[in-house]
Amino acid sequence: MNLDALYSELTLKTKAKLALVVLDGLGDIATKSQGECTPLEAAATPNLDALVARGVAQGRMTPVAPGITPGSGPGHLALFGYDPLEFQVGRGVIEALGLGLGLKAGDVAARANFCTLDAKGIVTDRRAGRIETKVCEELCALLAKKVKKVGDAEVIIKAGKGHRFVVIFRGKGLEGPLTDADPHREGRPIPTVEAVDKKSAKAKNAAKLIAEFYKAALPIIAKKKPANGFLMRGIAHQPAIPTFEERYQLKPACIAVYPMYKGLAQLVGMTKLEGPQTIAEQFERYVAEYDNYDYFFIHYKYTDMYGEDGNFEAKKKAIEDFDDALPILLAKMPDVLAITGDHSTPCAMKGHSWHPQPVLLHSEFSGSDKLDRFTETGANLGSLGVFDAKFLIRHMQANAKMFDKFGA
Amino acid sequence: MNLDALYSELTLKTKAKLALVVLDGLGDIATKSQGECTPLEAAATPNLDALVARGVAQGRMTPVAPGITPGSGPGHLALFGYDPLEFQVGRGVIEALGLGLGLKAGDVAARANFCTLDAKGIVTDRRAGRIETKVCEELCALLAKKVKKVGDAEVIIKAGKGHRFVVIFRGKGLEGPLTDADPHREGRPIPTVEAVDKKSAKAKNAAKLIAEFYKAALPIIAKKKPANGFLMRGIAHQPAIPTFEERYQLKPACIAVYPMYKGLAQLVGMTKLEGPQTIAEQFERYVAEYDNYDYFFIHYKYTDMYGEDGNFEAKKKAIEDFDDALPILLAKMPDVLAITGDHSTPCAMKGHSWHPQPVLLHSEFSGSDKLDRFTETGANLGSLGVFDAKFLIRHMQANAKMFDKFGA
Repeated sequence: MNLDALYSELTLKTKAKLALVVLDGLGDIATKSQGECTPLEAAATPNLDALVARGVAQGRMTPVAPGITPGSGPGHLALFGYDPLEFQVGRGVIEALGLGLGLKAGDVAARANFCTLDAKGIVTDRRAGRIETKVCEELCALLAKKVKKVGDAEVIIKAGKGHRFVVIFRGKGLEGPLTDADPHREGRPIPTVEAVDKKSAKAKNAAKLIAEFYKAALPIIAKKKPANGFLMRGIAHQPAIPTFEERYQLKPACIAVYPMYKGLAQLVGMTKLEGPQTIAEQFERYVAEYDNYDYFFIHYKYTDMYGEDGNFEAKKKAIEDFDDALPILLAKMPDVLAITGDHSTPCAMKGHSWHPQPVLLHSEFSGSDKLDRFTETGANLGSLGVFDAKFLIRHMQANAKMFDKFGA
Repeated sequence: MNLDALYSELTLKTKAKLALVVLDGLGDIATKSQGECTPLEAAATPNLDALVARGVAQGRMTPVAPGITPGSGPGHLALFGYDPLEFQVGRGVIEALGLGLGLKAGDVAARANFCTLDAKGIVTDRRAGRIETKVCEELCALLAKKVKKVGDAEVIIKAGKGHRFVVIFRGKGLEGPLTDADPHREGRPIPTVEAVDKKSAKAKNAAKLIAEFYKAALPIIAKKKPANGFLMRGIAHQPAIPTFEERYQLKPACIAVYPMYKGLAQLVGMTKLEGPQTIAEQFERYVAEYDNYDYFFIHYKYTDMYGEDGNFEAKKKAIEDFDDALPILLAKMPDVLAITGDHSTPCAMKGHSWHPQPVLLHSEFSGSDKLDRFTETGANLGSLGVFDAKFLIRHMQANAKMFDKFGA
């Protein structure tokens, strides 16, 4: 029997409030050079400690599968209860979400970047000398002005950082994924894109559109230097994903600061609550909106950012800043509260990793693992064990008494 | 490769004796109001402690899937090694087992209860004013006397508690599940049952039988007050389940007191050893039958019963009573002994829950986790980790050296 179908069948609508707080990239590893502790272990977290003393269950979560390092997309989809292997989102889509572009189901999105071509159309610099963002914005504005449609599809172009931009094709009967319009090395021409699934008429349509887009767009920038061409990768459509609300019988809201996370929440149909810029403001917004939603996704970016920088002290401080603000949330305690990361970002690795992230769960029925603090090492001893991140929402729903008994 | 097939292929017939002792609903959660400990932690268990000191492996088991609260049926099927998602048993079948009715493969069973109908056949009270058990027994006796067959199928009727009873249809070519003959609210007529799978000729046959049963039975009680009608739910057939003995090469016996657990054991072909009423008598019977069987399922009900009552002290005492009797079993130590629950029944929840139950495994090869006691918190630290309950039998078989090496 399909497990998701079983969960749906057993789901009861209740009045419970659930909150998921994601400290992006929270998980870390203890290394000798860092005094054999993690930023979470080194941080002073009196408010988290007090929460633990009230009784929490702890554990660690495998974001996707053993050894797999996830990007933010699969990391968050798993936290939202969507198997990241089943619900794959193209990089173009993720990039578009990251730039704050609202996507519709069926939109085909591509990550793009300017490059330099020689007279024969051979790629001589895949990043066009890493042009400045301002130049990129000018080029994108020019393209957007001149190429508003290809075929029947609307074209949406938005500049990113440096040489990067995103192109969206909004039309009917389109589908990805397509092969890359990128030779992935210099000294070769831009390849023509093709449908990955040769049997998909929709993907063939999309490939034709990309070819037309190149035909229309390349001449416009042909005289520019050094950015006289562009590459496109990760070309895919936004998949139709069952909404969070229909899947879990919970009305969800997202309180995030960065566009990528708002976009990922929007992908599953969460309402974006805009405005807050600090974690304290995010928690205040949660309190203000408490009665209006059943599920709150609150995203905190800085743990990941400093992990990526390899800055142990700054990551530790980011956790302490989070802890300082935590009482605002705890003053209006949801029925079920989960605090975790979407993956680990160990300072020693300066990037995302596969290490299971620690998770803490508090509810009237979470029980207590009798640990003093919430840490990676403590979470190893918790009652939740090591489990797949996609089951976190199921643990949360169970703690909210949202599941009927299975069988007599 | 199918895992069950692999286990079968590797299974060696040995002379090992295995015993599974189920303290029903054993698992619990530590809450502040209970002094932050569980009944198992609070109980004085010198004999369990001594067993732990001899060397045991501990862990926790997910009964069905994360967050899923199982009934006794799925809980025990998992302990017997049958995936409870694959082997689903209808509520009618479970109810029949609970009333001590011996079912045969293919029997269609239904939970039924008396109700009140108005002159137009509209349900005005779904529970017929909650008639007394005695009245229910009289009505069932009347129906059983007058309706012995419908079509070619034998009809077996047995009264339960209050307004509840069970009906079994024993014939050829029948199958469930069927939709309910129950409007699930008052003010509506009793719906005609239909096959859930419209393509199943057997289910259509069963639906026809139910209609004939209603036609024959309703007039018999039409003049009774207040119970002049009845509803039927959870109508399903007893699935053909591969027997425990063919699956594991172990000759199994069940030493249980309550009909439901004897019934579940019988469902997989275990021999019921009748007679014992106390856990001491159950262990004595185990000793007496030691040479006659390879696998003993010993069921202790009271931990669940007091958990359902929310009676912490009584649940603790039930564990202590169990511990008092334990030396009888330990005096005739099986080669592999597992002690666990079929699920958790936290006192704080007064009902079954999803929390993984603690499990203890002792054999010459179980190793020792070097813990002092058998508790939920201790089990979190054990070498077995958190695993699906359906694998317990495989751990037991492995400890009995019943598996050949896989691959060279």
